[in-house]
Parts: sequence; structure tokens; C-alpha cells
Amino acid sequence: MDYRAHNFFPGPAALPLEVLEQAREELVGYRGHGMSLMEMSHRTEAYERLNEETQELLLSILGLPKGYRALFMGGGASTQFALVPLNLLGPGRKGWYAITGQFAEKAYEEARTVGDAAVVASSKAMGWSVVPSAEELKVPESESGQVAYLHITVNNTIEGSRYPVLPEVGEVPLIGDVTSEVLSRTMDYSRFGLFYAGAQKNLGPAGVTVVVLREELLKQASTSIPTIFRYETYVKHRSLYNTPPVHSVYMLRLVLEWVQRQGGVAALERRNVEKARLLYDVMDASRGFYRGVVAQPYRSVMNITWRMADEALERMFVEASEREGFAGLAGHRSVGGLRASAYNAVPVEACRALAEFMTEFQRRHG
Amino acid sequence: MDYRAHNFFPGPAALPLEVLEQAREELVGYRGHGMSLMEMSHRTEAYERLNEETQELLLSILGLPKGYRALFMGGGASTQFALVPLNLLGPGRKGWYAITGQFAEKAYEEARTVGDAAVVASSKAMGWSVVPSAEELKVPESESGQVAYLHITVNNTIEGSRYPVLPEVGEVPLIGDVTSEVLSRTMDYSRFGLFYAGAQKNLGPAGVTVVVLREELLKQASTSIPTIFRYETYVKHRSLYNTPPVHSVYMLRLVLEWVQRQGGVAALERRNVEKARLLYDVMDASRGFYRGVVAQPYRSVMNITWRMADEALERMFVEASEREGFAGLAGHRSVGGLRASAYNAVPVEACRALAEFMTEFQRRHG
Repeated sequence: MDYRAHNFFPGPAALPLEVLEQAREELVGYRGHGMSLMEMSHRTEAYERLNEETQELLLSILGLPKGYRALFMGGGASTQFALVPLNLLGPGRKGWYAITGQFAEKAYEEARTVGDAAVVASSKAMGWSVVPSAEELKVPESESGQVAYLHITVNNTIEGSRYPVLPEVGEVPLIGDVTSEVLSRTMDYSRFGLFYAGAQKNLGPAGVTVVVLREELLKQASTSIPTIFRYETYVKHRSLYNTPPVHSVYMLRLVLEWVQRQGGVAALERRNVEKARLLYDVMDASRGFYRGVVAQPYRSVMNITWRMADEALERMFVEASEREGFAGLAGHRSVGGLRASAYNAVPVEACRALAEFMTEFQRRHG
Repeated sequence: MDYRAHNFFPGPAALPLEVLEQAREELVGYRGHGMSLMEMSHRTEAYERLNEETQELLLSILGLPKGYRALFMGGGASTQFALVPLNLLGPGRKGWYAITGQFAEKAYEEARTVGDAAVVASSKAMGWSVVPSAEELKVPESESGQVAYLHITVNNTIEGSRYPVLPEVGEVPLIGDVTSEVLSRTMDYSRFGLFYAGAQKNLGPAGVTVVVLREELLKQASTSIPTIFRYETYVKHRSLYNTPPVHSVYMLRLVLEWVQRQGGVAALERRNVEKARLLYDVMDASRGFYRGVVAQPYRSVMNITWRMADEALERMFVEASEREGFAGLAGHRSVGGLRASAYNAVPVEACRALAEFMTEFQRRHG
């Protein structure tokens, strides 16, 4: 077997080894077609079936009821920051944004270029160490007619926080950026009117963006924006309006099948909680050598962030970890510190090895 | 070696076998990193280098002078139909469109949702069998201040036509959709202010869209649209503003290296002309059994289109071809007929085999 590093990259990130091996096996010749899937028209029966089945599989794994549709788009979650307000923020209405990290802030800034967006809560002044309570995000009945949606970032990749529970929004559609948390945690996804995720954390390689929406939300959608920006175009053409990122959708399919073989989202969630606990336990027992960035109830299970006494020690930690076969532990360049991204495909053993490394590093340098 | 079909799909389309084999070799473990490239952050030195080098290689293969920049985006050429006018069609100015096929028409329709777009020439009434002359597309000096750009579709994938020479536009920026022709033909690319191409014909698998622009064009670009839609964002961040489709860029790199090994665009053009001639010669010698769709001077070298006596015979042709190991010969579902897409990676032998098949089919059914 090829040597495998302990991969804690924040995204693009670890993929299941067996998915990569299957993709390698099928890369040059795809299932008797005499060519790679990368070489096949998206109008072939083989691809149309793959497209349909992958959409159905995703909705089924997420436990969504009828009325939801899965779309495959390009451009990453950052493109959704613009497409959500372009489609859903009609004139005379307000988009509500909860700002819990840099990506949430970017979503809000993009919405401001499109329409009337408002910050309803922000944890910026708290150094991103918390997320707003359900109470803070409650839409008063008197305003709910004017509010087009409430947008939240369910897990904050850079900061390492997440919503312990989803806010109550009543009739107002809840929009979620679930990029770094989808498939990692059981959640009532039908609480969302729409959610989206760039693939490169828990869904597959970079290149496809998944959008899931309640079809009736399209009733409030703009029809005057370019066709290619309209969610309705993707719904109507089942994501085959133009050429989709074929191989990325195929990889997504392999990952979804792998999720099923692991026992589904509930089984992965148990494993993820165990993985995160291994790291948080070292932190909490370190008497301040490793200081978690986020307050306990809001700690992310996917992105575990911490600081050390000073930047020199943090740099030393990263360098030592790389020598020991760990990758991706430096915090986001805008915030510094340390971060271990332990997405679904990161094995328990990698987290155990990291916990041991952290303990040993403290023993030497603490 | 795996069995290989004769692949004439219009896109996604044939890739060089040696590129696929190299991608397979490196898929699970990328160059000693202990992981797949698909698993590596786009902020790693390895990916940043790949990103830079691929941009430089593309500009160099296309023979572009300093002042041009190559961008890697998502969403396909159809997204560019909207982004070109959003960026470049300022208020009080007109976008000129030459309509030479369905994709050209879609580009125009999208521009109309954004600003003031005008059809300056159309070959629709001629059944798409010609493209406008340079004379027809000349911008009168008196109007050139009001014209934001002239948009052309250099090769029309569905219809099978192309511009034999690029129009003269003087000071007006020329914008080209080169999706199905880039890298297949020597051309003075510096005649364009901006050109774009979905990858899935001559550049690689679907998933990345290449945009090349003269940097000074940004002076006329809008700054009030969402950040993620602005070309300037991609220029400034060298296409690393958000997560790019990492593996698609890698595949593009392998294809560009393959182009170099073939002797560059000029060598590929000679081969492409030979490939197309093999098929056009059979048509022209068929005494009307195969009738080319496009008038001789405008025939595409990439997408060779023809009709037969009736749809039943066309269907019979497609079915017989599939039994003989040919793929992708049915015309676009909106127009019917036959089409052989003979992009760079389609070998001469495949075209020779198709020419022989066409001759034999006529002998039996003519």
C-alpha cells in the first residue's frame, strides 16, 4: 500500500482510501465503455443515470422528505454567497445574516452587493468563540413577512465553532452553509429551506457544489437574473442544463456509497465525536499549554482549533508535526494558531496519533 | 491495454490516453505527498506551484504577449455568458453579438438579462450554414465609443461551423467563446480582449473554465457586482480567491504538457486538418448520400456535421456505428443529423476508421 500521511487539511481534505482506489481502478476504462468517464458526454444514458442516482442517494442519506431537490453546480460555496440573494432576496425584503466567522461575513458582504442584507447577530466581538443562541435569531412575528430568509453558517471552518442546535425560524426560510459539516452529524435537514456545500470537505474532491432546496422556495425566486444563475434552471434540467463537473459528481457518488457502508451519518457522527474528543481531551488536560479557541458548547467536531503560548511555539509545533507525518495542522493564514480538520474520511487512528503527538510535544516543550 | 472505443463525443470528449494513464498512476499517491492531489489544500506550496505553472504554460502555448492573464473558474462557458456582460457591459454601452449558433444565441440572451445587448449579424436564417464576414462585423468608427465589446463564438459546436478568419474590430474589445476550438488551431489570440473555454473539449475533463484576458480590460469592468463574479478577483488572487477545482486544473496541466510533446498547436492543427479532411472527403465524394450542413469555407475542423436522406437512415447509421465501436456520432438532440467531434485527442486512426465505415455504410445502403 502507498504511504499515507495523517491528513488534517481543512479542504480539499482527506478522502476515503477505498474511494480513491476505486476511482483509480476505473479511471482509464469506465465499466466497459472503452473510455474514461471523463471522456463521456453528459448526455449519455450512463451519465444521466449516475446523475439521477447520486441526487437520490444524497437526499436519502440526509433523510429528506419529498419536495426537496439536490442540485449540482460549480463555483464553490463562495458562488452560493451571491446566488442565494440573487435568487431569493427580492426587492422590499431583507436577508438576515448571522455572522459567526469569516465565511459567514463573506456571505453577508456578497448579499449587500445584491440587495438589502442585515446582520442580526454577530460573534465577531467575542473573537468568534461563540455562536448566537436560538433566542437571538428568533424572527419576531411582526417582521417575518419582510424577512426573505435567515442565513447561517452551521459550522465555521476557520474558527472551529458550530451551532449546537439549529435556530427556530418559524415561517422564514432557513438557509445554511453546511460546507464543512454536511454528512458528519445527524440533523433535521428539513429545517432548512435551502442548504449548500462545496464538496471538498465531506462530499468529495473540489469541483462540485451541492445545493439542496425545498422546491416550493422557487416560488419566491427571481426570474430576471441570468438563466445560469437561477436555481430553477438546475431543478428543471436536473443539473444537466449545461455540462456538469462529471468526474466530481462521480466521486461524490463513490463517497456517498462509502458513507452508506460506514453505517450512514449516525455511525459517522459517533466516530467523529470520538475523534474530536481525543483532541479536546488533550487540550483540556494540558493546563493551558493548548488553549481551545471556542467556548465549550460551540466547539466544532470537524475543525478543532487551538492556540499555544506564542507564535514561535505554534510554528515549532507545525514543523515537528510535519516531520512526524501529519499534514495541514497550521491554522488559517488569517487567524494563525493550530487547526485539525477531522472530516469523515480522517480515521480515528490519525486523531489518536495526533493526540499522542500533542501529549509528547507538551512533555518536551511544556 | 484497455479496449478503447473510437470516441467522437462532442464534450466531455476524448482525452489523450497517456494523460489518463499518468492521472491513474498519480491518483492515490501524488508525488510522494502521502495522499492524492484531490486531498491536498489549495494553499499548499505544491498546488500553488501547479496553479502558477499551468497558467504560464497555457499563455505560452497560445503565444500570448505580456499583459494577458489566465484565470481558472467554475461553472462552464455558460456561466461566462453571464459574467462577460456583468463585468464588461457598463451602463450606456452596448454589447454586440454575432449569432452563429445556439450557444452564441444563449450568450446573447444572457447578456440581455444584464444590459443592452444587440445582434449585429446572424446566420440563423441561413440554417447556421455560414458565419458573418469580417465586413459585416466591422464596428463603424462613429459607434465604437458606445460598443463595449463584440462577442463571437469562434467555433460552433452544435452546428459545425467556424470563423475562417477573425473579424477586425479596431479599438473595440473582441470577446471569443473558444470552447470547442482552443489549442486546435493557430490563431493570433492577442486579437482578443478576452476569450473563454469550458475545458471539456480540448483542455481536459469538465470542471474548470479557462478565461484569458488582457489585463487592461479590467479598467472598464464593473466593481459593483458580487466579488465572486468579478474577473478582477481572479486576477488579483491568481485564481485562488476560493477553492479551485484542483484536480481539473491538474488534468489541464497534463493535457498542456501533452500538447507540447505533440509539437504545439501548429502540429496539432496539421493533424486536425488531415482528420477533418478524411471525413469531408467522404462526404464530398458521396454524391449527396452524406450532405454537409455547413458551406465549405466555414466548415469546422473540430465538429464535422452532416445529414442523410432521412432520420430513419441517420438512426440506422448511428446504431451501426455503435456496433462497430464508434461513440458519439448522433447530432445534437436539438438539430438531429450526424456529428463527429474530432478534438485534439482523437487520433487520426479513429477518423480513418470512421471514413472507412462511412464509405462501407454507403456501399450497403446508398
